[in-house]
Amino acid sequence: MALIETHPRLRVRQESPLNAEPAPGDLIESFRTPNDLFFIRSHGNIPTVDAGTYRLTIDGLVESPLSLSLADLRRFPRITAGATLQCAGNRRRELIEFAPIPNELPWGSEAISNAEWSGVPLREVLAAAGPKSGALHVAFLGLDETERHGHRFQFGGSIPLEKATHPEVLLADTMNGEPLPPAHGAPVRVVIPGYIGARSVKWISRITLQEAPSDNYFQAKAYRLFPASTGPDDVDWDSGLMLGEAPVNSVICSPVSGDRLPAGRVTVRGWAMAGGGREIARVDVSADGGKTWKTAELGAGGSGWTWRFWQAPLDLAPGEQEIVCRAFDSAAQTQPAHPSQVWNFKGYANNAWHRVRVVCG
Amino acid sequence: MALIETHPRLRVRQESPLNAEPAPGDLIESFRTPNDLFFIRSHGNIPTVDAGTYRLTIDGLVESPLSLSLADLRRFPRITAGATLQCAGNRRRELIEFAPIPNELPWGSEAISNAEWSGVPLREVLAAAGPKSGALHVAFLGLDETERHGHRFQFGGSIPLEKATHPEVLLADTMNGEPLPPAHGAPVRVVIPGYIGARSVKWISRITLQEAPSDNYFQAKAYRLFPASTGPDDVDWDSGLMLGEAPVNSVICSPVSGDRLPAGRVTVRGWAMAGGGREIARVDVSADGGKTWKTAELGAGGSGWTWRFWQAPLDLAPGEQEIVCRAFDSAAQTQPAHPSQVWNFKGYANNAWHRVRVVCG
Repeated sequence: MALIETHPRLRVRQESPLNAEPAPGDLIESFRTPNDLFFIRSHGNIPTVDAGTYRLTIDGLVESPLSLSLADLRRFPRITAGATLQCAGNRRRELIEFAPIPNELPWGSEAISNAEWSGVPLREVLAAAGPKSGALHVAFLGLDETERHGHRFQFGGSIPLEKATHPEVLLADTMNGEPLPPAHGAPVRVVIPGYIGARSVKWISRITLQEAPSDNYFQAKAYRLFPASTGPDDVDWDSGLMLGEAPVNSVICSPVSGDRLPAGRVTVRGWAMAGGGREIARVDVSADGGKTWKTAELGAGGSGWTWRFWQAPLDLAPGEQEIVCRAFDSAAQTQPAHPSQVWNFKGYANNAWHRVRVVCG
Repeated sequence: MALIETHPRLRVRQESPLNAEPAPGDLIESFRTPNDLFFIRSHGNIPTVDAGTYRLTIDGLVESPLSLSLADLRRFPRITAGATLQCAGNRRRELIEFAPIPNELPWGSEAISNAEWSGVPLREVLAAAGPKSGALHVAFLGLDETERHGHRFQFGGSIPLEKATHPEVLLADTMNGEPLPPAHGAPVRVVIPGYIGARSVKWISRITLQEAPSDNYFQAKAYRLFPASTGPDDVDWDSGLMLGEAPVNSVICSPVSGDRLPAGRVTVRGWAMAGGGREIARVDVSADGGKTWKTAELGAGGSGWTWRFWQAPLDLAPGEQEIVCRAFDSAAQTQPAHPSQVWNFKGYANNAWHRVRVVCG
């Protein structure tokens, strides 16, 4: 296991496996999150991979199974592109405040980061292997090991083959111009823009074309969206939506809850992110709990695969104030108002209006 | 102008131009809406087109401009596929109940219908014309004439070229196995699944490849989503989201508001529709204003381009009851609770929870 020293300003939510998110202020400091401040989500160990003996296997429903060294992989055409990754459990803490969610990480609202990735489009590698008819899903397997219900296994997941044919889906070996750090999947990870972070499998070792989604625990059982009325005692693990594309979301990063500010004008700042390649069309902020809204100014971005920063001046009266934000995506889709409206017992996909409570005086 | 006799059960919202929607009960009678009950949305006259002299022009940024007769068009490869069309103004009446929206059609919640369309994939025709580099949008022009602000012009709109390269986008000449009826665009219309209905231009006469979206009034000024704080007096018509893909939506068709029912078990039925090719993952119904929810059973469908019917048994106590529904799409995206949260002065894209008030006794 690699010894990972995390940046002192990363907020560690769990030591083992290592899970950490940046502070809100750090998150909006730069459009591309520095590698050492990028949120870390791991389900097992952080493996140390020998670049010299590393092999990536492509198998399953393909004409020519492949076993690629790093040098082999680097002979494919390469691209560089921005992509924002977000954990499906981001903003779980707000769901927990509505009703308990035991045994899941209490993420704040910063389990999201943005980087520029370089690597090989997955479709180039799949084309070299030659998908056979009947192949509908692309399953990924990492080199990290985890344990659930007494079984040890490697983390995995899958995406539809149709998504894998899009140019934005990468096998990335660099992150913001540097070799992939160990905590982010060195030497090679998958990057699936527009999807929940769990599908961007790190330390990728095997890619299997198959008829059905992956039967890995983290595809087949976890990362499913269940109805609010379902709990751990009555859940049918094979039901529920397998999470893939993410819903539209937005968060206020400045000010943060608990801040004391002078009354008057404050510049509210944050991020907004749409899923599935949709773009952010508008962000609104409110100082009266959502009765009236002001349109925020959008910053750089807009590829559909990256977040957008936004800011808006807001006049705050003296006393306790609640600031609220919401985004609209390019399909005119906006966020629900309250965490109660999206609560689920695994705590995924919270995209309720984000609320920050401050005291002005 | 063709004399159009509408089905007696179509609810005519405007005589000229002709705009009509079916009754809720008729809508869920069959997965494919019969042609004579399909909602009608027109912005001008319903033109009578001579099939013998009809020509479809393809021009703009293309290598070989085309002028196609109906016989020419029918020599292209053909496909048949289901697609649900919905007016961007569907469910405007609920927005009007929150705050007035003058000069726009007071659609109920049935400005939506589903048909099986046959025709030529648009991309086949575009490939024959040969898009030039620089072409980013595909503009459509109909043969119907309308008037706005003293100008007479033909209805039009556009979609990104990227969308036009997808196989589901059709030049359709049949609807549920019959030649396209005059009110639905005979002899040929565009069908853009997953988009607001206005982009599926009827009586299509001209397709132009160009750098920018169409400058037609109905693309450049109308069918834009403005912030709630914007009104007719301060609107910048060139701002606001140009509507394309539609947000996730669902409606209760049975019972309907005002019904008197025996208390006890009632089967609630309706439709749900996601936009942009997303699928409906779940529909919930509530008898207590959204505090608790029951998962509905989903009917046929699930291509992403068509609606899904759903039904759920619900136990209603005696007295006045409100029944609520909401859907989740395949990106874990759900609907906002109240029309106030999506209200805009043009009254587009209302996808608030649908509410029906009945009396049980």
